[in-house]
Amino acid sequence: MNPTIKDVAQKANVSIATVSRVLHNLGGYSDKTKQKVDRTIKELKYQPNAIARGLINKRTQTIGVLFPDVSSAFSSELLHGIDEFVHNHNYSVVVCNTDQDGKRTLKYLQLLREKQVDGILFSSEVLKKEYYDLLEDMRVPVVLISSQTDFPNMPYVKIDDFQAAYDAVDYMVTKGHRRIAMISGTKGDPIAGTPRIEGYRKALEAHGIAFNSRYLFYGDFMYESGGRAMKSILQKAPEVTAVFAASDEMAIGALSTATQHGLNVPEDISIMGYDDLRLARMVNPPLTTVRQPLHDIGMIASGKLIDMIESGEIAQSQICAHSIVERQTVRNIT
Amino acid sequence: MNPTIKDVAQKANVSIATVSRVLHNLGGYSDKTKQKVDRTIKELKYQPNAIARGLINKRTQTIGVLFPDVSSAFSSELLHGIDEFVHNHNYSVVVCNTDQDGKRTLKYLQLLREKQVDGILFSSEVLKKEYYDLLEDMRVPVVLISSQTDFPNMPYVKIDDFQAAYDAVDYMVTKGHRRIAMISGTKGDPIAGTPRIEGYRKALEAHGIAFNSRYLFYGDFMYESGGRAMKSILQKAPEVTAVFAASDEMAIGALSTATQHGLNVPEDISIMGYDDLRLARMVNPPLTTVRQPLHDIGMIASGKLIDMIESGEIAQSQICAHSIVERQTVRNIT
Repeated sequence: MNPTIKDVAQKANVSIATVSRVLHNLGGYSDKTKQKVDRTIKELKYQPNAIARGLINKRTQTIGVLFPDVSSAFSSELLHGIDEFVHNHNYSVVVCNTDQDGKRTLKYLQLLREKQVDGILFSSEVLKKEYYDLLEDMRVPVVLISSQTDFPNMPYVKIDDFQAAYDAVDYMVTKGHRRIAMISGTKGDPIAGTPRIEGYRKALEAHGIAFNSRYLFYGDFMYESGGRAMKSILQKAPEVTAVFAASDEMAIGALSTATQHGLNVPEDISIMGYDDLRLARMVNPPLTTVRQPLHDIGMIASGKLIDMIESGEIAQSQICAHSIVERQTVRNIT
Repeated sequence: MNPTIKDVAQKANVSIATVSRVLHNLGGYSDKTKQKVDRTIKELKYQPNAIARGLINKRTQTIGVLFPDVSSAFSSELLHGIDEFVHNHNYSVVVCNTDQDGKRTLKYLQLLREKQVDGILFSSEVLKKEYYDLLEDMRVPVVLISSQTDFPNMPYVKIDDFQAAYDAVDYMVTKGHRRIAMISGTKGDPIAGTPRIEGYRKALEAHGIAFNSRYLFYGDFMYESGGRAMKSILQKAPEVTAVFAASDEMAIGALSTATQHGLNVPEDISIMGYDDLRLARMVNPPLTTVRQPLHDIGMIASGKLIDMIESGEIAQSQICAHSIVERQTVRNIT
């Protein structure tokens, strides 16, 4: 039988209200009383019930984070930023992996509701109507990361995907490339798919280069799919001098496949990624890429969420700045 | 005000006991009654309290996972296995990041206690006395992953670190290498540090090669530290023909640094890693390494934990088989 607050009060010879005040640091008791209560709590191994405590101070000081693939390097770097900010503000983080096709998203939203988290960071997945309805019911603040929605009261933090892709392709053109293939992420993805293809297309057109659908290939953001796409490029469009991949993982897959086919990067073909994961620095040659400041995005989103939890006001969405990181996989052929 | 089970019973015109039986699929009611109750639950948006439900069926169907660095590729691959197994067995997973020096471990154990998880997977960290005491108090089953302890009732799942390091170095010797440096992980780490150094030493001695402390370098398992160690090796022990790193990340750091110094791998120097992360396949040239079956380890540990939760019996510890994965970074010089 777990001891109750009443047991603590009796043993410490104070009132239940006093124990409660000590537990919640509300003052109105002497140091001596506090020491006595703290000692008794320890002796009895009294564990204040988290839910009951939540009912008093209205919070569990816990934030839930939903990732479609917590194991990806992408989620990892966001999580570093989230963890850093959240712990410095005296909250804890529970992370749930919704799986890539979102098949566990509803289940985990329910779980976070049951665990009474104070707020939710919802990352890298399209916010479907059914998720929105449940989140509305839950009445907890939500901030989207690397996602975006038209539903009200759902601020987001992300980069400008169209502009980032535009700038990447613009960079390759200024290096003299005109036959540039793209490896897009999942077809139809409204966040990380379509806007990046649009950026690719518009950047080409701005330089008077017609968009050629033969140069557009699809993967699923993952390493293996980048390799498969590169194989298709080498077969179907060998005249291409540069490849822009919509994720670092796909770019690195393309790099491996090019190397296996006896090509040197960037001498024979240039490759550019998107994200600037730690991986990008670790491969050989190091990958030129578009940087998303994932650590900062994680911190900023956490800050907005905690503000919403504590103030009750809806935060503003924020577009973070991207940048081009020049390493060694794009050759100047001007 | 959230609706209660009483509200549901009144509106559906049945007893509270009936609503409870429907909620827990206990039978003893007609299909028609079940439909009526289900409909009423939906209409009222009744949310059975997780904790109250836990008190009835004794479980929250939630497992807590503690990682010292959830963002590492190592944790990611374990988590894939854990997630797969746990979801197939109708549990959910909440993941907590204890940080590398374990500074949040106690905080998160407390949190998991408050969230009333049914069991805990404790990964890659030494189980200190203070953690053990708290876990004992919590009275939930615990399985250690890639860790090990002498405390009772704490089964573990891991590979044989001594033997895996021994086999790696033995492999390099059979390829003709005799001047083999080692980049160890954190000095004094009783799990992933000392046993791997012992394996290195004994494998050398078994081939009549004296252990030379000048060839032993230290990192912290991470990429950057492997690069730093490689720099020291090139300066202080340039006669070395092969390097065994105690993690893939360090091996890849060593690979990058060797390449930056104009060396070709494996022509000029051989490098072997430890773990077989996805990364190992992604770098160029692909890394020869010792494989830990991390996905399987995650699944096996989850299976043992769920067995313990459901049977109340302590599971047996298990040593999983490692293997040598030959790729392209170790040259035969015989």
